[in-house]
Amino acid sequence: MAAERAASLDALPGYRWLNNGQSAFSGEPLDLYRRLDALFTGWAAEERAQEYVFPALIPARELAKLDYFRSFPQLVTFPAVLDADPRNLEGFGGRDPMDPAGEVHLTTMAPIRDVLTPVACYHFYIQFQGENLERPRCVTTLATCFRREEYYAPLERQWSFSMREIVCLGTADEVKAFLARCQERVDRFLKRIGLPIEWTAATDPFFNPSRNPKYLMQKLDPVKTEMVFERRLAIGSVNFHRNYFGEAFGITAAGEAAFSGCVAFGLERWMKAVMTQFGTRPQGWPSLVDRPE
Amino acid sequence: MAAERAASLDALPGYRWLNNGQSAFSGEPLDLYRRLDALFTGWAAEERAQEYVFPALIPARELAKLDYFRSFPQLVTFPAVLDADPRNLEGFGGRDPMDPAGEVHLTTMAPIRDVLTPVACYHFYIQFQGENLERPRCVTTLATCFRREEYYAPLERQWSFSMREIVCLGTADEVKAFLARCQERVDRFLKRIGLPIEWTAATDPFFNPSRNPKYLMQKLDPVKTEMVFERRLAIGSVNFHRNYFGEAFGITAAGEAAFSGCVAFGLERWMKAVMTQFGTRPQGWPSLVDRPE
Repeated sequence: MAAERAASLDALPGYRWLNNGQSAFSGEPLDLYRRLDALFTGWAAEERAQEYVFPALIPARELAKLDYFRSFPQLVTFPAVLDADPRNLEGFGGRDPMDPAGEVHLTTMAPIRDVLTPVACYHFYIQFQGENLERPRCVTTLATCFRREEYYAPLERQWSFSMREIVCLGTADEVKAFLARCQERVDRFLKRIGLPIEWTAATDPFFNPSRNPKYLMQKLDPVKTEMVFERRLAIGSVNFHRNYFGEAFGITAAGEAAFSGCVAFGLERWMKAVMTQFGTRPQGWPSLVDRPE
Repeated sequence: MAAERAASLDALPGYRWLNNGQSAFSGEPLDLYRRLDALFTGWAAEERAQEYVFPALIPARELAKLDYFRSFPQLVTFPAVLDADPRNLEGFGGRDPMDPAGEVHLTTMAPIRDVLTPVACYHFYIQFQGENLERPRCVTTLATCFRREEYYAPLERQWSFSMREIVCLGTADEVKAFLARCQERVDRFLKRIGLPIEWTAATDPFFNPSRNPKYLMQKLDPVKTEMVFERRLAIGSVNFHRNYFGEAFGITAAGEAAFSGCVAFGLERWMKAVMTQFGTRPQGWPSLVDRPE
Protein backbone atom coordinates (compact mmCIF):
# COMPACT_ATOMS: atom_id res chain seq x y z
CA MET A 1 0.00 0.00 0.00
CA ALA A 2 2.72 2.43 1.02
CA ALA A 3 4.77 1.34 -1.98
CA GLU A 4 1.84 1.90 -4.38
CA ARG A 5 1.29 5.37 -3.04
CA ALA A 6 4.94 6.20 -3.27
CA ALA A 7 4.90 4.97 -6.86
CA SER A 8 1.89 7.07 -7.78
CA LEU A 9 3.54 10.14 -6.30
CA ASP A 10 6.79 9.23 -8.00
CA ALA A 11 5.20 9.59 -11.40
CA LEU A 12 3.59 12.89 -10.46
CA PRO A 13 4.99 15.81 -12.47
CA GLY A 14 6.47 18.42 -10.15
CA TYR A 15 6.95 16.01 -7.27
CA ARG A 16 10.22 14.35 -6.36
CA TRP A 17 10.89 12.03 -3.45
CA LEU A 18 14.53 12.07 -2.41
CA ASN A 19 15.74 8.89 -0.83
CA ASN A 20 17.19 10.74 2.12
CA GLY A 21 13.64 11.22 3.39
CA GLN A 22 12.62 14.52 1.85
CA SER A 23 10.45 15.99 -0.93
CA ALA A 24 11.09 18.58 -3.65
CA PHE A 25 8.23 20.48 -5.31
CA SER A 26 7.48 22.42 -8.44
CA GLY A 27 4.46 22.89 -10.72
CA GLU A 28 1.11 21.66 -9.42
CA PRO A 29 2.40 20.08 -6.20
CA LEU A 30 4.12 23.35 -5.33
CA ASP A 31 0.89 25.15 -6.12
CA LEU A 32 -0.95 22.88 -3.66
CA TYR A 33 1.74 23.48 -1.04
CA ARG A 34 1.26 27.23 -1.41
CA ARG A 35 -2.52 27.15 -1.48
CA LEU A 36 -2.47 25.19 1.75
CA ASP A 37 -0.11 27.59 3.44
CA ALA A 38 -2.26 30.50 2.27
CA LEU A 39 -5.24 28.76 3.89
CA PHE A 40 -3.37 28.42 7.18
CA THR A 41 -2.08 31.99 7.10
CA GLY A 42 -5.64 33.12 6.45
CA TRP A 43 -6.66 31.42 9.69
CA ALA A 44 -3.67 33.03 11.39
CA ALA A 45 -4.82 36.42 10.13
CA GLU A 46 -8.27 35.85 11.65
CA GLU A 47 -6.44 35.59 14.97
CA ARG A 48 -4.41 38.69 14.09
CA ALA A 49 -1.29 36.57 14.44
CA GLN A 50 1.96 38.33 13.60
CA GLU A 51 4.17 36.45 11.16
CA TYR A 52 7.79 35.53 11.97
CA VAL A 53 10.53 33.87 9.95
CA PHE A 54 13.08 31.97 12.03
CA PRO A 55 16.38 30.35 11.10
CA ALA A 56 16.96 26.60 11.09
CA LEU A 57 19.53 26.27 13.88
CA ILE A 58 18.54 26.59 17.54
CA PRO A 59 21.09 26.79 20.39
CA ALA A 60 21.09 23.45 22.21
CA ARG A 61 21.04 25.19 25.59
CA GLU A 62 17.59 26.60 24.74
CA LEU A 63 16.20 23.15 23.97
CA ALA A 64 17.83 21.81 27.13
CA LYS A 65 15.48 24.11 29.09
CA LEU A 66 12.66 21.93 27.75
CA ASP A 67 14.41 18.70 28.70
CA TYR A 68 14.22 17.98 24.97
CA PHE A 69 17.31 15.77 24.85
CA ARG A 70 16.00 13.43 27.50
CA SER A 71 12.51 13.32 26.01
CA PHE A 72 13.30 12.98 22.28
CA PRO A 73 16.95 11.90 21.76
CA GLN A 74 15.85 9.64 18.91
CA LEU A 75 14.52 12.58 16.88
CA VAL A 76 17.33 15.13 17.15
CA THR A 77 19.46 16.24 14.20
CA PHE A 78 22.54 18.29 15.10
CA PRO A 79 24.46 20.62 12.75
CA ALA A 80 28.05 19.38 12.84
CA VAL A 81 31.11 21.11 11.37
CA LEU A 82 34.74 20.07 11.08
CA ASP A 83 37.23 21.41 13.57
CA ALA A 84 38.56 24.56 11.87
CA ASP A 85 42.25 23.81 12.32
CA PRO A 86 43.71 24.00 8.80
CA ARG A 87 45.52 20.69 9.25
CA ASN A 88 42.24 19.05 10.19
CA LEU A 89 40.48 20.54 7.16
CA GLU A 90 43.35 19.51 4.96
CA GLY A 91 43.21 16.00 6.37
CA PHE A 92 39.51 15.84 5.52
CA GLY A 93 39.71 17.37 2.06
CA GLY A 94 42.94 15.68 1.13
CA ARG A 95 41.72 12.11 1.02
CA ASP A 96 38.70 10.37 -0.45
CA PRO A 97 35.84 12.03 1.44
CA MET A 98 33.46 9.06 1.32
CA ASP A 99 33.16 5.32 1.12
CA PRO A 100 31.13 3.45 -1.52
CA ALA A 101 28.05 3.41 0.74
CA GLY A 102 28.01 7.19 0.71
CA GLU A 103 29.26 7.56 4.29
CA VAL A 104 31.43 10.62 4.84
CA HIS A 105 34.91 10.00 6.29
CA LEU A 106 35.02 12.64 8.98
CA THR A 107 38.06 14.03 10.70
CA THR A 108 37.88 15.87 14.04
CA MET A 109 34.56 17.64 14.53
CA ALA A 110 34.07 20.94 16.35
CA PRO A 111 31.94 20.87 19.52
CA ILE A 112 28.21 20.80 18.82
CA ARG A 113 26.19 23.59 20.42
CA ASP A 114 23.09 23.71 18.21
CA VAL A 115 20.18 21.65 16.98
CA LEU A 116 18.17 21.74 13.75
CA THR A 117 14.65 23.02 14.50
CA PRO A 118 12.53 20.08 15.68
CA VAL A 119 9.27 21.98 16.31
CA ALA A 120 8.21 25.31 14.81
CA CYS A 121 6.76 26.95 17.92
CA TYR A 122 9.85 26.51 20.11
CA HIS A 123 11.29 29.55 18.36
CA PHE A 124 8.63 31.76 19.91
CA TYR A 125 9.25 30.76 23.52
CA ILE A 126 12.95 31.36 23.01
CA GLN A 127 12.26 34.71 21.32
CA PHE A 128 9.88 35.92 24.04
CA GLN A 129 11.75 34.55 27.06
CA GLY A 130 11.74 36.81 30.10
CA GLU A 131 8.89 38.94 28.75
CA ASN A 132 5.74 39.91 30.58
CA LEU A 133 2.70 39.84 28.30
CA GLU A 134 0.12 42.52 28.98
CA ARG A 135 -2.34 40.98 26.56
CA PRO A 136 -2.56 37.67 24.72
CA ARG A 137 0.04 37.39 22.00
CA CYS A 138 -0.80 35.52 18.84
CA VAL A 139 1.95 34.70 16.35
CA THR A 140 2.57 32.41 13.39
CA THR A 141 5.47 30.91 11.50
CA LEU A 142 6.22 28.39 8.77
CA ALA A 143 9.31 26.42 9.72
CA THR A 144 11.29 23.58 8.28
CA CYS A 145 11.42 20.94 11.00
CA PHE A 146 13.91 18.09 11.23
CA ARG A 147 13.18 14.74 12.86
CA ARG A 148 15.12 11.55 12.42
CA GLU A 149 12.70 8.61 12.13
CA GLU A 150 13.16 4.85 11.80
CA TYR A 151 11.83 4.97 8.25
CA TYR A 152 10.65 7.65 5.86
CA ALA A 153 7.68 7.75 3.48
CA PRO A 154 6.83 10.37 0.82
CA LEU A 155 4.91 13.34 2.27
CA GLU A 156 4.07 11.30 5.38
CA ARG A 157 7.23 10.84 7.36
CA GLN A 158 10.21 12.93 6.38
CA TRP A 159 13.59 13.78 7.82
CA SER A 160 12.72 17.41 7.07
CA PHE A 161 9.24 18.81 6.52
CA SER A 162 7.25 22.05 6.67
CA MET A 163 5.17 22.97 9.65
CA ARG A 164 2.89 26.02 9.90
CA GLU A 165 1.96 26.92 13.45
CA ILE A 166 -0.38 29.48 14.95
CA VAL A 167 0.55 30.09 18.58
CA CYS A 168 -1.14 31.97 21.41
CA LEU A 169 0.47 32.99 24.70
CA GLY A 170 -1.54 34.49 27.55
CA THR A 171 -3.69 33.37 30.46
CA ALA A 172 -5.18 29.86 30.57
CA ASP A 173 -8.59 31.17 29.56
CA GLU A 174 -7.25 33.21 26.67
CA VAL A 175 -5.30 30.27 25.31
CA LYS A 176 -8.20 27.84 25.69
CA ALA A 177 -10.54 30.22 23.88
CA PHE A 178 -7.99 30.58 21.06
CA LEU A 179 -7.62 26.83 20.69
CA ALA A 180 -11.39 26.30 20.68
CA ARG A 181 -11.86 28.93 17.95
CA CYS A 182 -9.10 27.41 15.84
CA GLN A 183 -10.34 23.86 16.20
CA GLU A 184 -13.86 24.88 15.27
CA ARG A 185 -12.62 26.85 12.26
CA VAL A 186 -10.54 23.94 10.97
CA ASP A 187 -13.30 21.44 11.62
CA ARG A 188 -15.93 23.52 9.83
CA PHE A 189 -13.65 23.99 6.83
CA LEU A 190 -12.76 20.30 6.57
CA LYS A 191 -16.44 19.33 6.75
CA ARG A 192 -17.26 21.84 4.04
CA ILE A 193 -14.64 20.58 1.59
CA GLY A 194 -15.33 16.95 2.52
CA LEU A 195 -11.92 15.94 3.81
CA PRO A 196 -12.74 13.39 6.50
CA ILE A 197 -10.66 13.54 9.65
CA GLU A 198 -11.19 12.40 13.19
CA TRP A 199 -10.10 14.48 16.16
CA THR A 200 -8.08 12.09 18.30
CA ALA A 201 -6.34 12.55 21.64
CA ALA A 202 -2.62 11.85 21.27
CA THR A 203 0.68 12.02 23.08
CA ASP A 204 4.03 13.29 21.92
CA PRO A 205 6.52 10.61 20.72
CA PHE A 206 8.55 10.45 23.93
CA PHE A 207 11.59 8.19 24.14
CA ASN A 208 11.00 5.52 26.79
CA PRO A 209 7.50 6.93 27.39
CA SER A 210 6.63 4.80 30.38
CA ARG A 211 9.57 6.30 32.27
CA ASN A 212 8.84 9.91 31.35
CA PRO A 213 6.68 11.88 33.78
CA LYS A 214 5.67 14.24 30.97
CA TYR A 215 4.26 11.36 28.97
CA LEU A 216 2.37 10.13 31.99
CA MET A 217 0.94 13.58 32.52
CA GLN A 218 -0.19 13.73 28.88
CA LYS A 219 -1.90 10.35 29.30
CA LEU A 220 -3.70 11.45 32.44
CA ASP A 221 -4.78 14.81 31.10
CA PRO A 222 -4.74 14.88 27.28
CA VAL A 223 -3.48 18.15 25.92
CA LYS A 224 -2.82 17.16 22.30
CA THR A 225 -5.65 16.54 19.82
CA GLU A 226 -4.68 15.44 16.35
CA MET A 227 -6.55 15.77 13.04
CA VAL A 228 -6.27 12.17 11.82
CA PHE A 229 -6.91 11.32 8.18
CA GLU A 230 -7.84 7.73 7.25
CA ARG A 231 -7.34 6.65 10.87
CA ARG A 232 -3.58 6.73 10.43
CA LEU A 233 -2.15 10.06 9.26
CA ALA A 234 -2.07 13.02 11.66
CA ILE A 235 -2.14 16.07 9.40
CA GLY A 236 -2.16 18.56 12.23
CA SER A 237 -2.81 19.05 15.91
CA VAL A 238 -4.25 21.37 18.52
CA ASN A 239 -2.03 21.57 21.58
CA PHE A 240 -2.58 23.07 25.01
CA HIS A 241 0.81 23.42 26.71
CA ARG A 242 -0.54 24.63 30.04
CA ASN A 243 2.13 26.96 31.50
CA TYR A 244 4.99 24.63 30.60
CA PHE A 245 6.77 26.97 28.18
CA GLY A 246 5.95 30.04 30.25
CA GLU A 247 7.71 28.45 33.21
CA ALA A 248 10.65 27.10 31.22
CA PHE A 249 11.34 30.49 29.60
CA GLY A 250 10.21 32.92 32.27
CA ILE A 251 7.33 34.35 30.23
CA THR A 252 4.56 35.80 32.37
CA ALA A 253 0.95 36.91 31.85
CA ALA A 254 -1.29 38.43 34.51
CA GLY A 255 1.53 38.02 37.04
CA GLU A 256 1.92 34.27 36.57
CA ALA A 257 3.78 31.94 34.23
CA ALA A 258 2.12 32.39 30.83
CA PHE A 259 0.00 29.65 29.34
CA SER A 260 0.38 28.75 25.69
CA GLY A 261 -1.16 26.65 22.99
CA CYS A 262 -0.73 26.10 19.30
CA VAL A 263 -2.39 24.76 16.21
CA ALA A 264 0.09 22.98 13.96
CA PHE A 265 -0.32 21.99 10.31
CA GLY A 266 2.01 19.57 8.55
CA LEU A 267 2.14 20.90 4.99
CA GLU A 268 3.33 17.70 3.31
CA ARG A 269 0.77 15.57 5.16
CA TRP A 270 -2.04 17.93 4.18
CA MET A 271 -0.83 17.59 0.59
CA LYS A 272 -0.97 13.82 0.94
CA ALA A 273 -4.48 13.89 2.41
CA VAL A 274 -5.80 16.29 -0.27
CA MET A 275 -4.27 14.27 -3.10
CA THR A 276 -5.49 10.97 -1.63
CA GLN A 277 -9.02 12.29 -1.22
CA PHE A 278 -9.35 14.48 -4.31
CA GLY A 279 -6.67 13.25 -6.69
CA THR A 280 -3.29 14.56 -7.69
CA ARG A 281 -4.51 17.14 -10.22
CA PRO A 282 -5.79 20.63 -9.38
CA GLN A 283 -9.02 20.03 -11.32
CA GLY A 284 -10.13 17.69 -8.53
CA TRP A 285 -9.12 19.85 -5.57
CA PRO A 286 -11.72 21.80 -3.63
CA SER A 287 -11.29 25.53 -3.15
CA LEU A 288 -8.72 25.91 -0.41
CA VAL A 289 -9.88 29.42 0.38
CA ASP A 290 -11.79 29.82 3.64
CA ARG A 291 -13.52 33.16 3.99
CA PRO A 292 -14.56 34.16 7.49
CA GLU A 293 -18.33 34.30 7.88
CA MET B 1 31.96 50.17 12.58
CA ALA B 2 30.65 46.62 12.44
CA ALA B 3 29.68 46.86 16.11
CA GLU B 4 27.77 50.11 15.54
CA ARG B 5 25.85 48.59 12.70
CA ALA B 6 25.05 45.50 14.68
CA ALA B 7 23.83 47.74 17.50
CA SER B 8 21.58 49.74 15.23
CA LEU B 9 20.05 46.57 13.85
CA ASP B 10 19.74 45.19 17.34
CA ALA B 11 17.37 47.96 18.31
CA LEU B 12 15.33 47.55 15.14
CA PRO B 13 11.80 46.32 15.81
CA GLY B 14 11.14 43.06 14.02
CA TYR B 15 14.81 42.16 13.69
CA ARG B 16 16.66 39.77 15.95
CA TRP B 17 20.27 38.68 15.67
CA LEU B 18 20.86 35.28 17.21
CA ASN B 19 24.34 34.75 18.52
CA ASN B 20 24.68 31.47 16.68
CA GLY B 21 25.09 33.48 13.48
CA GLN B 22 21.54 33.80 12.20
CA SER B 23 18.68 36.33 11.91
CA ALA B 24 14.97 36.17 12.73
CA PHE B 25 12.47 38.55 11.08
CA SER B 26 9.02 39.93 11.63
CA GLY B 27 7.26 43.25 10.96
CA GLU B 28 9.05 45.73 8.71
CA PRO B 29 12.27 43.74 8.24
CA LEU B 30 10.20 40.72 7.17
CA ASP B 31 8.32 43.00 4.81
CA LEU B 32 11.62 44.11 3.27
CA TYR B 33 12.73 40.48 2.97
CA ARG B 34 9.55 39.64 1.09
CA ARG B 35 9.59 42.68 -1.15
CA LEU B 36 13.11 41.81 -2.18
CA ASP B 37 12.24 38.21 -2.94
CA ALA B 38 9.23 39.40 -4.95
CA LEU B 39 11.62 41.63 -6.93
CA PHE B 40 13.88 38.67 -7.67
CA THR B 41 11.00 36.35 -8.56
CA GLY B 42 9.73 39.07 -10.90
CA TRP B 43 13.07 38.92 -12.69
CA ALA B 44 12.83 35.12 -12.71
CA ALA B 45 9.37 35.40 -14.29
CA GLU B 46 10.77 37.60 -17.07
CA GLU B 47 13.01 34.63 -17.89
CA ARG B 48 10.00 32.28 -17.60
CA ALA B 49 11.89 30.45 -14.87
CA GLN B 50 9.95 27.64 -13.21
CA GLU B 51 9.95 27.76 -9.42
CA TYR B 52 11.16 24.87 -7.26
CA VAL B 53 11.23 24.31 -3.52
CA PHE B 54 13.99 21.99 -2.32
CA PRO B 55 14.68 20.42 1.07
CA ALA B 56 17.63 21.38 3.26
CA LEU B 57 19.60 18.12 3.25
CA ILE B 58 21.60 17.00 0.20
CA PRO B 59 23.18 13.51 -0.12
CA ALA B 60 26.93 13.89 0.38
CA ARG B 61 27.64 11.65 -2.61
CA GLU B 62 26.01 14.25 -4.86
CA LEU B 63 28.26 17.00 -3.55
CA ALA B 64 31.25 14.69 -3.88
CA LYS B 65 30.65 14.74 -7.66
CA LEU B 66 31.55 18.43 -7.48
CA ASP B 67 34.68 17.81 -5.45
CA TYR B 68 32.97 20.03 -2.88
CA PHE B 69 34.63 18.47 0.15
CA ARG B 70 38.10 19.09 -1.17
CA SER B 71 37.30 22.61 -2.33
CA PHE B 72 35.28 23.93 0.65
CA PRO B 73 35.79 21.69 3.73
CA GLN B 74 35.86 24.79 5.94
CA LEU B 75 32.28 25.73 4.97
CA VAL B 76 30.42 22.42 5.27
CA THR B 77 27.72 21.75 7.88
CA PHE B 78 26.64 18.11 8.22
CA PRO B 79 23.35 16.88 9.72
CA ALA B 80 24.36 14.46 12.49
CA VAL B 81 22.11 12.12 14.44
CA LEU B 82 22.75 9.77 17.34
CA ASP B 83 23.20 6.08 16.67
CA ALA B 84 19.67 4.71 17.01
CA ASP B 85 20.54 1.85 19.36
CA PRO B 86 18.21 2.34 22.36
CA ARG B 87 21.09 1.93 24.79
CA ASN B 88 22.97 4.67 22.99
CA LEU B 89 19.95 6.98 23.05
CA GLU B 90 19.40 6.19 26.70
CA GLY B 91 23.04 6.89 27.44
CA PHE B 92 22.66 10.29 25.78
CA GLY B 93 19.35 11.25 27.31
CA GLY B 94 20.10 9.78 30.72
CA ARG B 95 22.86 12.17 31.76
CA ASP B 96 23.33 15.90 31.66
CA PRO B 97 23.19 16.61 27.92
CA MET B 98 25.45 19.64 27.98
CA ASP B 99 28.29 21.39 29.72
CA PRO B 100 28.16 24.97 31.05
CA ALA B 101 29.59 26.32 27.78
CA GLY B 102 26.58 24.95 25.93
CA GLU B 103 28.48 22.09 24.30
CA VAL B 104 26.39 18.95 23.78
CA HIS B 105 27.77 15.74 25.31
CA LEU B 106 27.33 13.35 22.43
CA THR B 107 27.28 9.59 22.55
CA THR B 108 27.88 7.43 19.46
CA MET B 109 26.77 9.14 16.26
CA ALA B 110 25.27 7.42 13.22
CA PRO B 111 27.28 7.57 9.98
CA ILE B 112 26.94 10.90 8.16
CA ARG B 113 25.72 10.68 4.57
CA ASP B 114 24.26 14.16 3.98
CA VAL B 115 25.13 17.82 3.96
CA LEU B 116 23.11 20.95 4.70
CA THR B 117 22.56 22.88 1.44
CA PRO B 118 25.61 25.08 0.85
CA VAL B 119 24.52 26.66 -2.48
CA ALA B 120 20.96 26.97 -3.81
CA CYS B 121 21.59 25.99 -7.43
CA TYR B 122 23.27 22.64 -6.68
CA HIS B 123 19.78 21.22 -6.20
CA PHE B 124 19.00 21.76 -9.87
CA TYR B 125 22.00 19.87 -11.26
CA ILE B 126 21.20 16.97 -8.96
CA GLN B 127 17.52 17.08 -9.96
CA PHE B 128 18.25 17.21 -13.69
CA GLN B 129 21.18 14.77 -13.77
CA GLY B 130 21.24 12.45 -16.76
CA GLU B 131 18.75 14.59 -18.71
CA ASN B 132 19.12 15.80 -22.24
CA LEU B 133 17.79 19.36 -22.65
CA GLU B 134 16.09 20.05 -25.96
CA ARG B 135 15.84 23.74 -25.22
CA PRO B 136 17.34 26.05 -22.60
CA ARG B 137 15.85 25.44 -19.18
CA CYS B 138 15.40 28.32 -16.80
CA VAL B 139 14.53 27.67 -13.16
CA THR B 140 14.52 29.47 -9.84
CA THR B 141 14.53 28.65 -6.15
CA LEU B 142 14.85 30.33 -2.77
CA ALA B 143 16.97 28.16 -0.51
CA THR B 144 18.32 28.36 2.98
CA CYS B 145 22.08 27.92 2.65
CA PHE B 146 24.47 26.90 5.42
CA ARG B 147 28.11 27.92 5.59
CA ARG B 148 30.36 27.81 8.58
CA GLU B 149 32.49 30.96 8.73
CA GLU B 150 35.26 32.16 11.02
CA TYR B 151 33.01 34.88 12.36
CA TYR B 152 29.42 35.98 11.83
CA ALA B 153 27.89 39.45 11.46
CA PRO B 154 24.21 40.43 11.32
CA LEU B 155 22.76 40.14 7.80
CA GLU B 156 26.27 40.06 6.34
CA ARG B 157 27.84 36.77 7.25
CA GLN B 158 25.59 34.12 8.68
CA TRP B 159 25.77 30.41 9.44
CA SER B 160 22.46 30.11 7.61
CA PHE B 161 21.03 32.61 5.15
CA SER B 162 18.57 32.91 2.26
CA MET B 163 19.69 32.75 -1.34
CA ARG B 164 17.43 33.29 -4.37
CA GLU B 165 18.89 31.98 -7.57
CA ILE B 166 17.79 32.13 -11.19
CA VAL B 167 19.55 29.41 -13.18
CA CYS B 168 19.79 28.68 -16.90
CA LEU B 169 21.00 25.43 -18.45
CA GLY B 170 21.57 25.07 -22.19
CA THR B 171 24.25 25.78 -24.74
CA ALA B 172 27.09 28.19 -24.05
CA ASP B 173 25.44 30.90 -26.15
CA GLU B 174 22.05 30.48 -24.51
CA VAL B 175 23.55 30.70 -21.04
CA LYS B 176 25.71 33.71 -21.88
CA ALA B 177 22.72 35.55 -23.35
CA PHE B 178 20.70 34.77 -20.20
CA LEU B 179 23.45 36.06 -17.91
CA ALA B 180 23.86 39.24 -19.96
CA ARG B 181 20.11 39.95 -19.83
CA CYS B 182 20.01 39.35 -16.08
CA GLN B 183 23.03 41.48 -15.34
CA GLU B 184 21.68 44.35 -17.40
CA ARG B 185 18.27 44.09 -15.73
CA VAL B 186 19.77 44.17 -12.24
CA ASP B 187 22.15 46.96 -13.13
CA ARG B 188 19.42 49.14 -14.63
CA PHE B 189 17.21 48.60 -11.58
CA LEU B 190 19.97 49.42 -9.09
CA LYS B 191 20.85 52.58 -10.96
CA ARG B 192 17.22 53.64 -11.02
CA ILE B 193 16.71 53.23 -7.27
CA GLY B 194 20.15 54.68 -6.51
CA LEU B 195 21.72 51.73 -4.74
CA PRO B 196 25.39 52.01 -5.68
CA ILE B 197 27.18 48.78 -6.43
CA GLU B 198 30.27 47.90 -8.40
CA TRP B 199 30.43 44.82 -10.61
CA THR B 200 33.62 43.08 -9.54
CA ALA B 201 35.31 39.91 -10.78
CA ALA B 202 35.61 37.43 -7.92
CA THR B 203 36.58 33.88 -7.09
CA ASP B 204 34.84 31.31 -4.93
CA PRO B 205 36.22 30.94 -1.37
CA PHE B 206 38.33 27.83 -2.04
CA PHE B 207 40.21 26.17 0.79
CA ASN B 208 43.96 26.36 0.09
CA PRO B 209 43.22 28.29 -3.10
CA SER B 210 46.74 28.35 -4.46
CA ARG B 211 46.71 24.55 -4.57
CA ASN B 212 43.29 24.20 -6.21
CA PRO B 213 43.23 24.01 -10.01
CA LYS B 214 39.64 25.29 -10.04
CA TYR B 215 40.72 28.45 -8.23
CA LEU B 216 43.55 28.94 -10.66
CA MET B 217 41.16 28.51 -13.56
CA GLN B 218 38.80 31.11 -12.07
CA LYS B 219 41.72 33.52 -11.72
CA LEU B 220 42.81 33.00 -15.32
CA ASP B 221 39.33 33.25 -16.79
CA PRO B 222 36.94 35.03 -14.42
CA VAL B 223 33.49 33.47 -14.41
CA LYS B 224 32.05 35.10 -11.28
CA THR B 225 31.03 38.76 -11.17
CA GLU B 226 29.77 40.11 -7.88
CA MET B 227 27.48 43.06 -7.13
CA VAL B 228 29.58 44.77 -4.45
CA PHE B 229 28.04 47.37 -2.15
CA GLU B 230 30.28 49.87 -0.38
CA ARG B 231 33.33 48.15 -1.81
CA ARG B 232 33.02 45.35 0.73
CA LEU B 233 29.65 43.54 0.71
CA ALA B 234 28.80 41.21 -2.19
CA ILE B 235 25.00 41.23 -2.30
CA GLY B 236 24.76 38.94 -5.29
CA SER B 237 26.64 37.49 -8.21
CA VAL B 238 26.40 36.50 -11.85
CA ASN B 239 28.12 33.18 -12.50
CA PHE B 240 29.04 31.39 -15.69
CA HIS B 241 29.79 27.74 -14.84
CA ARG B 242 30.88 26.73 -18.34
CA ASN B 243 29.92 23.05 -18.74
CA TYR B 244 31.21 22.10 -15.28
CA PHE B 245 27.86 20.99 -13.81
CA GLY B 246 26.71 19.48 -17.10
CA GLU B 247 29.78 17.25 -17.09
CA ALA B 248 29.61 16.38 -13.41
CA PHE B 249 25.94 15.38 -13.61
CA GLY B 250 25.67 14.06 -17.16
CA ILE B 251 23.29 16.81 -18.35
CA THR B 252 23.48 17.42 -22.09
CA ALA B 253 22.28 20.09 -24.51
CA ALA B 254 22.72 20.02 -28.28
CA GLY B 255 24.59 16.74 -27.94
CA GLU B 256 27.27 18.04 -25.56
CA ALA B 257 27.65 18.58 -21.83
CA ALA B 258 25.21 21.36 -20.97
CA PHE B 259 26.48 24.79 -20.00
CA SER B 260 24.96 26.59 -17.06
CA GLY B 261 24.96 29.89 -15.29
CA CYS B 262 23.13 31.55 -12.47
CA VAL B 263 22.31 34.87 -10.92
CA ALA B 264 22.31 34.67 -7.13
CA PHE B 265 20.87 37.14 -4.63
CA GLY B 266 21.70 37.06 -0.92
CA LEU B 267 18.45 38.19 0.72
CA GLU B 268 19.96 39.26 4.04
CA ARG B 269 22.78 41.17 2.37
CA TRP B 270 20.33 42.99 0.10
CA MET B 271 18.39 43.90 3.24
CA LYS B 272 21.57 45.24 4.78
CA ALA B 273 22.43 47.27 1.68
CA VAL B 274 18.92 48.73 1.38
CA MET B 275 18.78 49.66 5.07
CA THR B 276 22.28 51.12 5.00
CA GLN B 277 21.53 53.23 1.93
CA PHE B 278 17.90 54.19 2.59
CA GLY B 279 17.39 53.69 6.32
CA THR B 280 15.73 51.01 8.39
CA ARG B 281 12.14 52.23 7.95
CA PRO B 282 9.90 51.53 4.94
CA GLN B 283 9.22 55.27 4.47
CA GLY B 284 12.77 55.66 3.17
CA TRP B 285 12.87 52.61 0.93
CA PRO B 286 12.54 52.99 -2.83
CA SER B 287 9.88 51.04 -4.67
CA LEU B 288 11.23 47.54 -4.99
CA VAL B 289 8.94 46.76 -7.90
CA ASP B 290 10.65 46.53 -11.29
CA ARG B 291 8.21 46.49 -14.19
CA PRO B 292 9.58 45.25 -17.50
CA GLU B 293 9.74 47.99 -20.11
